[in-house]
Amino acid sequence: MYLEKINKPNDIKKINKNNLYDLADEIREFLIESISETGGHLGANLGTVELTMALHLVLNLPQDKIIWDVGHQSYTHKILTGRKEGFSTLRKYGGMAGFPKTCESECDAFNTGHSSTSISAGLGMAVARTMAGENNTIVSVIGDGALTGGMAYEALNNAGKANTKLIVVLNDNNMSISENVGGVSQYLNNVRTSERYLELKEGVKEKLGKTAKGNDMIYKISKAKSSIKSFVIPGMYFEEMGLTYLGPVDGHDINAMVRVLNEAKRCKTPVLVHVLTKKGKGFLPAERHPARFHGAEPFDIETGLPKHKKMSPDYTDVFSTVMCKMGERDSDVVAITAAMPDGTGLKRFKSMYPSRFFDVGIAEEHAVTFAAGLAMGGLKPIVCVYSSFLQRAYDQIIHDVCIQNLHVVFCIDRAGLVGSDGETHQGIFDLSYLTSIPNMCVLAPKNKWELSDMIKFALKYNGPIAIRYPRGKAYDGLSEFRAPIEYGQSEWIFRESGICLIAVGSMVKTAVEVREKLKEMGKNVSILNARFVKPIDEELIKEAVSLHPHIVTMEENVLSGGFGERVGAFLLREGIFCKHTPIAIMDTYVEHGNVDILKKEIGLDADSIVEKILTDGEGLS
Amino acid sequence: MYLEKINKPNDIKKINKNNLYDLADEIREFLIESISETGGHLGANLGTVELTMALHLVLNLPQDKIIWDVGHQSYTHKILTGRKEGFSTLRKYGGMAGFPKTCESECDAFNTGHSSTSISAGLGMAVARTMAGENNTIVSVIGDGALTGGMAYEALNNAGKANTKLIVVLNDNNMSISENVGGVSQYLNNVRTSERYLELKEGVKEKLGKTAKGNDMIYKISKAKSSIKSFVIPGMYFEEMGLTYLGPVDGHDINAMVRVLNEAKRCKTPVLVHVLTKKGKGFLPAERHPARFHGAEPFDIETGLPKHKKMSPDYTDVFSTVMCKMGERDSDVVAITAAMPDGTGLKRFKSMYPSRFFDVGIAEEHAVTFAAGLAMGGLKPIVCVYSSFLQRAYDQIIHDVCIQNLHVVFCIDRAGLVGSDGETHQGIFDLSYLTSIPNMCVLAPKNKWELSDMIKFALKYNGPIAIRYPRGKAYDGLSEFRAPIEYGQSEWIFRESGICLIAVGSMVKTAVEVREKLKEMGKNVSILNARFVKPIDEELIKEAVSLHPHIVTMEENVLSGGFGERVGAFLLREGIFCKHTPIAIMDTYVEHGNVDILKKEIGLDADSIVEKILTDGEGLS
Repeated sequence: MYLEKINKPNDIKKINKNNLYDLADEIREFLIESISETGGHLGANLGTVELTMALHLVLNLPQDKIIWDVGHQSYTHKILTGRKEGFSTLRKYGGMAGFPKTCESECDAFNTGHSSTSISAGLGMAVARTMAGENNTIVSVIGDGALTGGMAYEALNNAGKANTKLIVVLNDNNMSISENVGGVSQYLNNVRTSERYLELKEGVKEKLGKTAKGNDMIYKISKAKSSIKSFVIPGMYFEEMGLTYLGPVDGHDINAMVRVLNEAKRCKTPVLVHVLTKKGKGFLPAERHPARFHGAEPFDIETGLPKHKKMSPDYTDVFSTVMCKMGERDSDVVAITAAMPDGTGLKRFKSMYPSRFFDVGIAEEHAVTFAAGLAMGGLKPIVCVYSSFLQRAYDQIIHDVCIQNLHVVFCIDRAGLVGSDGETHQGIFDLSYLTSIPNMCVLAPKNKWELSDMIKFALKYNGPIAIRYPRGKAYDGLSEFRAPIEYGQSEWIFRESGICLIAVGSMVKTAVEVREKLKEMGKNVSILNARFVKPIDEELIKEAVSLHPHIVTMEENVLSGGFGERVGAFLLREGIFCKHTPIAIMDTYVEHGNVDILKKEIGLDADSIVEKILTDGEGLS
Repeated sequence: MYLEKINKPNDIKKINKNNLYDLADEIREFLIESISETGGHLGANLGTVELTMALHLVLNLPQDKIIWDVGHQSYTHKILTGRKEGFSTLRKYGGMAGFPKTCESECDAFNTGHSSTSISAGLGMAVARTMAGENNTIVSVIGDGALTGGMAYEALNNAGKANTKLIVVLNDNNMSISENVGGVSQYLNNVRTSERYLELKEGVKEKLGKTAKGNDMIYKISKAKSSIKSFVIPGMYFEEMGLTYLGPVDGHDINAMVRVLNEAKRCKTPVLVHVLTKKGKGFLPAERHPARFHGAEPFDIETGLPKHKKMSPDYTDVFSTVMCKMGERDSDVVAITAAMPDGTGLKRFKSMYPSRFFDVGIAEEHAVTFAAGLAMGGLKPIVCVYSSFLQRAYDQIIHDVCIQNLHVVFCIDRAGLVGSDGETHQGIFDLSYLTSIPNMCVLAPKNKWELSDMIKFALKYNGPIAIRYPRGKAYDGLSEFRAPIEYGQSEWIFRESGICLIAVGSMVKTAVEVREKLKEMGKNVSILNARFVKPIDEELIKEAVSLHPHIVTMEENVLSGGFGERVGAFLLREGIFCKHTPIAIMDTYVEHGNVDILKKEIGLDADSIVEKILTDGEGLS
């Protein structure tokens, strides 16, 4: 058992060269076993076992730095830096994070979570290193999927001219989460399938020098225009940008990678090492179903099937169903995703209306402006995106969609707490960053029927409009409250006196729980379902205040710039005074863990809210 | 006079072929004369006269669509679509915009202002066109500078695989606003200097087929690695991405461009036409000083010098001076700009500390994450950026800087109303989008000394921190108020009773004017200089309310999520009631025009504020 010998950084260097593949096997086994229990990112990690080992053999951690793009492929890195034990608490509250975290280990050089940041961060660290007169090695490991993100290209463009040492490892598995899109992907595929490896590069040049062979090459060049680039020099694309290209190299051949990485270390300027890996490598179900095993729930190792059956539909399922209906009803409806056809629930829409489905790759900026163009052309684009990823397109929402008041529908999944992915993925800013944008209309549904009604409303609305809904089980309570959605209008669920809970989206369910608890204490409690976060329903809010001495706003969003502040500021400037208790996420990031636990920790669960209301309301009645 | 004959779209087609260059000369003369009077973007427009003429000769407007990236090069387009008369009111309030505007002409297909959006928008419109069964031509005109922006690459990557007609015209003048940076720029330079034009492309292939010549080529290929790409096929970079490449073609040769564009129109899939132009073409001062004539003030045609001497320093000058001092004092201070070394005032810092100056091109996303990497490496990066352009990096500010609580300083110029550039450039969202981010600290100086003090404070502070200041003359009043900057603390300027003006940054000057007017009416008026917008000074705000029945918050930012809402919501949730009048920009975009006029229009001038305060305060005392 070689894995036992790995307890701290650089322990891998003590393993006999001949036993490295045994260690790789043990790591794979360990990962499959662990993740089958806890859930987590399986496919990406199985694909990078040998690559990570090679990096750890060549580098000296923590002096040398590895920046893991996105970071969900860093499990082997965690094992090799002495965090094996952490896997029992992986992604659990208080446990080990699923992403690199500088606070978790000095071997984690930079926090990641979103895509395409590693080259920028690595270049910054490399420049700082050189200015400090040091000479340690800095490696940015980026997937080919992340390379479809514009900022990776911005970074390559700058790295290409930088006079500093930096190794970019392109971990090319021909995959984003589901499948890659775009010209660059096609290009990489050409390089990949040309089956020309490191040695060939020099070889081609040599061959070109010899007349007979040369003529043969010329013939091929003139005939095979489409593959001419990879044919002459693989990786020319990167060389164009000014980086030295090494590769492609087999990402499961440790020795080959060690050789190339050592060569890369000798370069004085940025170098790109092209490594070919297989997502899910070594676990057949993951190799076959990469999307399903990207972020996996606990599963049965024998069958690869999830251990827990999904009991009831989540909001993504509801969205998925409604999208297909809308697609059938109106041929102008088109759907756009940034590399998340499965996650956002567009898989069925894609198979039913392939020509009206657009996966643009990990490219949220393009996604939004592309949608603006589609809307300008008369179509009804629906941008389907996770809340935290839409942050990438904030300027495009303002500049391309909202200034022109274009009818683009944003269906924002994973809005609110997402749980085990942690800080980077919590969708807790959208109500703030969207509502400050003129012309934007923002809604949040209380239950699954309301999501459906809101999508229909949004498609009829003529302007920028966003619907945000959380991860997880779709609430199916309050089915009797299904008044038509009217622009800017909230909805009374219970209209009593005393305390008025004005709740946004997912918090309506919590409001029902809060109300029950308060009722048991003999309090009168009303619930107003906000429905619209922008515009707020000024009339009903005024009515609420006139009927209740104490109003409580409830939202799964940061306080700052959110619904509660809008309501509070509105009341004060109208000269209306009342007791206002805003329930929201205070000015802080929310780490990883079970959503219910997180809600307790940050005071968003029913009990905490009841307590807060009682404390705040003391002396009111 | 051929220009007289141009009064509506397509009139150019009536001009005799032999007189087209006469028309070009007249357009140039007209542009130089007009812009010398009104100011405006000169260099970019002089460079695209013939390109625009060629497009108008080949296309049929408004059925065909041109999307002008950034849009400041669209003056000739405005002339050719019958808007010659508009130039007397160019960029003035109520007058013609300096950018394309769909509301201004049906020949303006898509609003632009920020960089790198045109291919995404064009691709969206092209897809919609094809789905509608139509066949009109859609052209995205993008500069080589804009090509350093990641979203342009995201769009090219998608265009490369799109099965639809789209013409991308690369207007390559080897310039952003000052000079281009990065590997791609270098690459384009190689293509450019290879002096191989359209015909050559086929020529090379032919040549490669012939043995003798072929050998010669092979020899050159093996020797000249750095230019190998452009040598074999110019534009291979774009072909890699899946676009058909045509060019390069001389962007001042109308016939040549008409030929290529007609060829491009025949392509069934996206094609990139590489056009070489000279920024400032035909006006020597603009050719020689491209940065100065990018966005020019009114100037003397003979000398090229500005008509009006700058009387007093603006905030950019103050920043510039302080930066140089800070650079001298601390060798860890480094400066980052996204293609705005002149605009942000970094020119002097650049010349004094070239190795600590980084122009990353039009790449705000990379700029911010690169800065995060520099900070992680122990340096003190200052990101110097315009408010509206920083919107591009909203996610990077959250994800890479603030979650890790890194010491990155953001010096945000053009915060507030910018004037003649209009909607897309107004910096009126930063207080909202920055203050909702945990760990971020946000300041705004009242005058030039305070800007200086705040920069020094920011460099000592250990975390993400932003200072926002407006375009234009630096306020030099209130010089006697220079208490040290203390974290989170506001500053009393006048402490009386009655009305309390709590003003942010530039609005402190306005508050002084408002106070004078109110004093003349016999009112008592205090002024609290907020200094910190995040965190707000809760203690002094409470004190203000205890001393005054009426508080007025004043900011050059949208109301939603801004300073006033923070203060108002804070007061209400603390159970503190007072009359609150928030002065801010209501939920709307602000068009182009003189800043003083705009302020009047939106109620941010002293008179409007006085009126609002009096109305709101009726019955209070």
